[in-house]
Amino acid sequence: MREERLLLAGLPALARIPQNPRALLLALHGLQGSKEGILALLPGYAERGFLLLAFDAPRHGERGGPPPSGKDPDYVEAFYRVALAYAEEAVQVAEAAAKRYGPLPLGLAGGSMGAFVLHLLLSRGFRAQAALAFLGSGFPMKPPVGQRVEDPRVQALYEAPPATKGGAYGGVPLLHLHGTKDLIVPLERMEKTVEALRPHYPEGRLARYVEEGTGHTLTPLMARVGLAFLEAWL
Amino acid sequence: MREERLLLAGLPALARIPQNPRALLLALHGLQGSKEGILALLPGYAERGFLLLAFDAPRHGERGGPPPSGKDPDYVEAFYRVALAYAEEAVQVAEAAAKRYGPLPLGLAGGSMGAFVLHLLLSRGFRAQAALAFLGSGFPMKPPVGQRVEDPRVQALYEAPPATKGGAYGGVPLLHLHGTKDLIVPLERMEKTVEALRPHYPEGRLARYVEEGTGHTLTPLMARVGLAFLEAWL
Repeated sequence: MREERLLLAGLPALARIPQNPRALLLALHGLQGSKEGILALLPGYAERGFLLLAFDAPRHGERGGPPPSGKDPDYVEAFYRVALAYAEEAVQVAEAAAKRYGPLPLGLAGGSMGAFVLHLLLSRGFRAQAALAFLGSGFPMKPPVGQRVEDPRVQALYEAPPATKGGAYGGVPLLHLHGTKDLIVPLERMEKTVEALRPHYPEGRLARYVEEGTGHTLTPLMARVGLAFLEAWL
Repeated sequence: MREERLLLAGLPALARIPQNPRALLLALHGLQGSKEGILALLPGYAERGFLLLAFDAPRHGERGGPPPSGKDPDYVEAFYRVALAYAEEAVQVAEAAAKRYGPLPLGLAGGSMGAFVLHLLLSRGFRAQAALAFLGSGFPMKPPVGQRVEDPRVQALYEAPPATKGGAYGGVPLLHLHGTKDLIVPLERMEKTVEALRPHYPEGRLARYVEEGTGHTLTPLMARVGLAFLEAWL
């Protein structure tokens, strides 16, 4: 096991590398998170053979902030601009990682904003072998009263949310993990996501794990359950 | 790893025993199942340190049948008589196992009828460290039209179902695992169970894993997820 700090596709990245990796897991962090933060929430993954890779989203971590804040008047637009850019960069980082670490089966994990980015990727035909969506959904948030979305690329997310494009997901095994007391991404947004994807999924490849009483937190128990799901497919 | 066939509390049992067990998992099978059947559905558990123990329910396996059948005119009553006896025997078997294998943390797993028995046990204050309820619920089935329940012990299950006694569960960590297409124990019975227990559970100890498209089947993926949950508590 070793940790490596590196640039991939020109972006600051962090990798936790087991001796003989069985697969690469690209982990996408949430708003105001970082590559270090998301990897810390996935303990035991590298020990079980997953090469963990994370990179900072625009306006986050080493790339310098500040990240969008809920207090900004253009919060929604700023948030989705970050998410859209993070998704495009994820494609490039995955390519660069395949060159650096050799061809490995690829898994995706995303927390909160990272889970939305994961949906963006899958809805655009990005092919992972399995995916974990923690505390997230494939629908954009309800914009706060009075906020207008003018950026056409952000408007497009509201007009055609990722979760409405289930056919493009290609049946990539996908587990959602969520708490019933999540006040940031309400449980029903996740349930609505599963409902939208359901018709496009073959038996046993789409699932949800719901923890009673848990808020907007990636718990150690969620991390364990996610790892078990990944191990079934990777 | 070794397998042992033995009598515990006078009942035919089967154990799969790792070198240094971390915990004992008592596994309760479903209608028309057997101790061999339920252990076969929990692959990898012994390899990760769980001493797996199962025994045949009344009218099942080596104890001679036939098990109750849905075609019997007194099916519901016969079914719950088996479940009630299985629950009482489980207490005795757990005691006998503690004597034979030494004091170990105790987990419970039950499939279908076995999951209902698990609820019976928890609702009576039986103390496990964690429990997995596969394809089951803590409410008794809807009796088929025209079937009457006369046995007062079975009537009592309908008047006060296990899941309505959440206070007695003592917050034992409990994961339900269910398929959305389960035609034997419909998903909403499981959801109703979680709803009934919710007020009695502290944060993060009650959870559900729901697989889209899966019927009344304990899938390898469910088994993996269940193992991950157990490992968090045992």
